[in-house]
Amino acid sequence: MMKKMMNKSKDVVTQLLSGIVFAHEDILERLPKTGIIVRRQRVADQVAVISGGGTGHEPAHSGYVGENLLAASINGPIFTPPTREEILMGIEEANQGQGVFLVIKNFEADVTNFLEAEEEAIKRGISVKHVIVNDDCSIEKANFKKRRRGVAGTIFVHKIVAGAAAEGMTLDDLARLAEEVVASLNTLGVALAPGTLPGTENSQFQLAQNEISFGIGIHGEAGYREEPLESSEKLANELVNKLKTQYRLTRGSQLAILVNGLGSTPYMELAIFSNDVRRLLELEGIQIKFKKMGNFMTSLNMAGVSLTFLELKEDKWLHYLMLPTDAYGW
Amino acid sequence: MMKKMMNKSKDVVTQLLSGIVFAHEDILERLPKTGIIVRRQRVADQVAVISGGGTGHEPAHSGYVGENLLAASINGPIFTPPTREEILMGIEEANQGQGVFLVIKNFEADVTNFLEAEEEAIKRGISVKHVIVNDDCSIEKANFKKRRRGVAGTIFVHKIVAGAAAEGMTLDDLARLAEEVVASLNTLGVALAPGTLPGTENSQFQLAQNEISFGIGIHGEAGYREEPLESSEKLANELVNKLKTQYRLTRGSQLAILVNGLGSTPYMELAIFSNDVRRLLELEGIQIKFKKMGNFMTSLNMAGVSLTFLELKEDKWLHYLMLPTDAYGW
Repeated sequence: MMKKMMNKSKDVVTQLLSGIVFAHEDILERLPKTGIIVRRQRVADQVAVISGGGTGHEPAHSGYVGENLLAASINGPIFTPPTREEILMGIEEANQGQGVFLVIKNFEADVTNFLEAEEEAIKRGISVKHVIVNDDCSIEKANFKKRRRGVAGTIFVHKIVAGAAAEGMTLDDLARLAEEVVASLNTLGVALAPGTLPGTENSQFQLAQNEISFGIGIHGEAGYREEPLESSEKLANELVNKLKTQYRLTRGSQLAILVNGLGSTPYMELAIFSNDVRRLLELEGIQIKFKKMGNFMTSLNMAGVSLTFLELKEDKWLHYLMLPTDAYGW
Repeated sequence: MMKKMMNKSKDVVTQLLSGIVFAHEDILERLPKTGIIVRRQRVADQVAVISGGGTGHEPAHSGYVGENLLAASINGPIFTPPTREEILMGIEEANQGQGVFLVIKNFEADVTNFLEAEEEAIKRGISVKHVIVNDDCSIEKANFKKRRRGVAGTIFVHKIVAGAAAEGMTLDDLARLAEEVVASLNTLGVALAPGTLPGTENSQFQLAQNEISFGIGIHGEAGYREEPLESSEKLANELVNKLKTQYRLTRGSQLAILVNGLGSTPYMELAIFSNDVRRLLELEGIQIKFKKMGNFMTSLNMAGVSLTFLELKEDKWLHYLMLPTDAYGW
């Protein structure tokens, strides 16, 4: 059994959420006996943007609840989406009369539960729309299809859509904006070491001592190719080139980038890798107008990194990314 | 060799600092070819507070450079303090005419280099004072002496002293304030897994599969006692009780607490542990007036946690802790 600072397995999620709300009680509160974390300050006259998913991705998603960001996050068991009932309760709680916008990561169970909750909320008279984030541009080993799961780039969608909502954008316009952002968003992740789930001693997949795995998911899913890690520079080169194939970038193209640690990778390595990404993009004259570096959407104790590109198609997107927030994970 | 996202060993620190400044270029700049990171915005008419030490503790110390916080951090090689010359250069760069206050962690080489730089700066006509932070209340295995190294609690000293400086406190008064804060500050750390230094494949110390080590340092130093990790609750109980022996806490005593991850411990475990600390203190009627939870002073890829208590002897300390800042590590 891996050493973990935990108590009984059945209490992990409730104690996790209690700890998060304790640490950030000035901005967050938890609806009793639920996985729903809401912003203390309710803001009328704007669409409430909410997101959620399984736990194990901290600071996602509660870390994105706050000023100019989410009104609530709905948190399920580890790596398991919240139930339709809890999502519905979150929608009803967050709605301030202007409707609710859902940011959903593209995993089958997440999509099913969120869309069923949306349908029920609409029946109950609440205006609800959604976007499905599918930024993962890795490919299936078997058939070379793109996986298109929702991964770390999701936090850019949160920030842009919620920023627009805070400035009064309507639900219909938010849905259009969100689709445009998702269409410009791509992420590729690599594991240096697999994670372990609480209560188990087995790693989620196997990696040779010197190998890394390209295209891993955020739930400990193995990647599509294993190869040796030669250097940060070569890894940055590989990821930048793979991401570039998703765009028609030219000199002067404007990007927002996200270097996301998967949980147990030291800040030192994230910084060195970020520096390599910067050098590669500078060489090509691509402008990095916005960047974030840190642990934003983790996979428990997995070691590794993901790189996200968002091509900034409109100046407004940068404006929304730069709005101030008190959300603890941003 | 452990897999690390790095390039040549000789480039680790310079690429680390480049990456940090790239990610935070709106607030930070690096003096070319040095380990000195300064706040872009220079503020006249106040004492400049600066700190520093070896790298490998990210986000310390560059993460505490910013509004109402440090004017500069001086960064050395991994786990090795900066030279006297670089510290002196940092003092001269940061000084805006009101003098410079140094926050030094209590490790022999750090103290020597910082005090020699202070002496030389004074010779050159700059007013300089310092505090030596010694919050580690663990004990030596051999002789039961307190180690009194400077560890994670140092960030509370940064915030309080720099907040007071930002509000115009004089150098002499800052020195008195800093001594009072350090006298109320205690930290105890525990490793769940040792770290590894870049370029080596050996762990810094050995731990049995189910054991944890009490009283570890932030440079991978082994602790004073190994025992099995039974639960987060028991660990919290042990650390809270050990820290309480440093104070005369009664119902209504006011604490600021810091739950600091050592680098590779998942946020989930920090939150569960924090929740246990909260419950224990609540049971005794001790008031937690301020808290921070996250990775603030790490030890590369060590897994584990430290707990810091600061007894809030004056309301002003809480005020300084709560001042807004743009420093990326706070």
